[in-house]
Amino acid sequence: MRFPGLRQTRFNLITVGYEILDGKILDTNSKWLAERITSMGGRVDRMITVGDDVDEIAWAIRESIKSGVDWIITSGGLGPTYDDLTLRGVAKALKRKLVLNRRALEMLKIRYKELYERGIIPSPELTPQRRKMAMLPRGGKPLRNEVGSAPGVLLRSGRARIVCLPGVPSELKNIFENEVEPLIRKSLKKVFRVERWFEARGVAESTLAPRLEILRSRNPDVYIKSHPRMEEGRSMIRLQLISAANRLKAAERRVEKVAESLKKIVMELGGEFSPIRGDEP
Amino acid sequence: MRFPGLRQTRFNLITVGYEILDGKILDTNSKWLAERITSMGGRVDRMITVGDDVDEIAWAIRESIKSGVDWIITSGGLGPTYDDLTLRGVAKALKRKLVLNRRALEMLKIRYKELYERGIIPSPELTPQRRKMAMLPRGGKPLRNEVGSAPGVLLRSGRARIVCLPGVPSELKNIFENEVEPLIRKSLKKVFRVERWFEARGVAESTLAPRLEILRSRNPDVYIKSHPRMEEGRSMIRLQLISAANRLKAAERRVEKVAESLKKIVMELGGEFSPIRGDEP
Repeated sequence: MRFPGLRQTRFNLITVGYEILDGKILDTNSKWLAERITSMGGRVDRMITVGDDVDEIAWAIRESIKSGVDWIITSGGLGPTYDDLTLRGVAKALKRKLVLNRRALEMLKIRYKELYERGIIPSPELTPQRRKMAMLPRGGKPLRNEVGSAPGVLLRSGRARIVCLPGVPSELKNIFENEVEPLIRKSLKKVFRVERWFEARGVAESTLAPRLEILRSRNPDVYIKSHPRMEEGRSMIRLQLISAANRLKAAERRVEKVAESLKKIVMELGGEFSPIRGDEP
Repeated sequence: MRFPGLRQTRFNLITVGYEILDGKILDTNSKWLAERITSMGGRVDRMITVGDDVDEIAWAIRESIKSGVDWIITSGGLGPTYDDLTLRGVAKALKRKLVLNRRALEMLKIRYKELYERGIIPSPELTPQRRKMAMLPRGGKPLRNEVGSAPGVLLRSGRARIVCLPGVPSELKNIFENEVEPLIRKSLKKVFRVERWFEARGVAESTLAPRLEILRSRNPDVYIKSHPRMEEGRSMIRLQLISAANRLKAAERRVEKVAESLKKIVMELGGEFSPIRGDEP
């Protein structure tokens, strides 16, 4: 649901991986990120999945920058193998070189030392594959990964911030919660969301529907949804109103205005109209 | 996984709906379609999710056409309500008008008559909202929906075919299987896929890994994956080779060539190398 006139911090989510395009894996990362971002008051405008291909990744990044979003979050393609190409794609889109980042290298050293000491890997050596994860697009800042090897990456390009996260869900969540969410919260435009529920009794949904349609077209800044059901053979419609604005008063006023119109309509149609307590009955 | 040099019928999948961008709903349609398309020998190049917004839908369609894919499949946004905007978005991208399609109207008439006779809806009348689903971009052909109301739509634009499907999974699957899959099968470039499994014993994965990396870079047309595990304290690595080509012989030859190189490598490293029967042990 979207509210015209509401200024929101805007996001694009980019997922990288042939395994998703081949239908082998369900992309649950995007939903998780979108849920988090939406609940904070941000707005996801696009989700794009591309393959492990430098040009395709660069295309997705460039289109996102062009669309003017505030944040671009990629997931996948950060690992040590030859087909982990996200940072190369980002570098290409931004026309930057990949350079060795000392802090990222330090993170990797500590990580592999620890894995070695715990007997998980046979050698702590920073092989070329492992060092690859410390090659960031120039200006990139590594983001600590507490549960896996590949650090996340944070970059700026004009007004957009680009965050690259690993595709492994536990690693993505760890970096997002610890390193990214605090930054997003600071950058968020204030959004106030007001939700109210009402019930209409004794009016058929098919009679109410055309009136709701007109109400909606006149109030694009309020989300109006009807949830009809039968109760003891009688029509009962729960009506949900949501508005959001950059000021609380504005959101409240809009919902109240629509609630009054709704009340009039329901009573004109011979029904009863009353508020329901609580957020979502 | 992708095979350079392999000519494949290419697809973009576009999902329409704020409920996905808001993280309320997991997009399972794209995975289902991708799995189907991949198993037929097609290739999904991009998945894009946009909101219920004419310009955003048009952007996704235009970018897909620009990228030269053979098929564009949209899901969602075909219903009767004011925020079902997919066909308007497609019409805008193709610079076509929405016109009333007689066959689509006929389908809707039959559908609502049936729902009415079964006592599910109070009137079979084709209200403006219901008629809206018969307004197709000029040149569009309706696709029969056996389990819901909104017909699917098939369009051509240059070499690309555009299919619009409802977002309700059962409806999407019904139209896809009955009306779309047969057309796709006819349009598919022939692809032969060859998969072989081998096992290497007595070689550590960390020793084998750098050799595999070189083998991969020299054979981009063969997918080489190692699945290491320990068996009675001894390293056992299952090796999976896949190739695909427009001719069966070519795919077989490529896999065999890599299998021979692999055998040499494993024996050089002092291990044993043998084929595994069956497709995926």
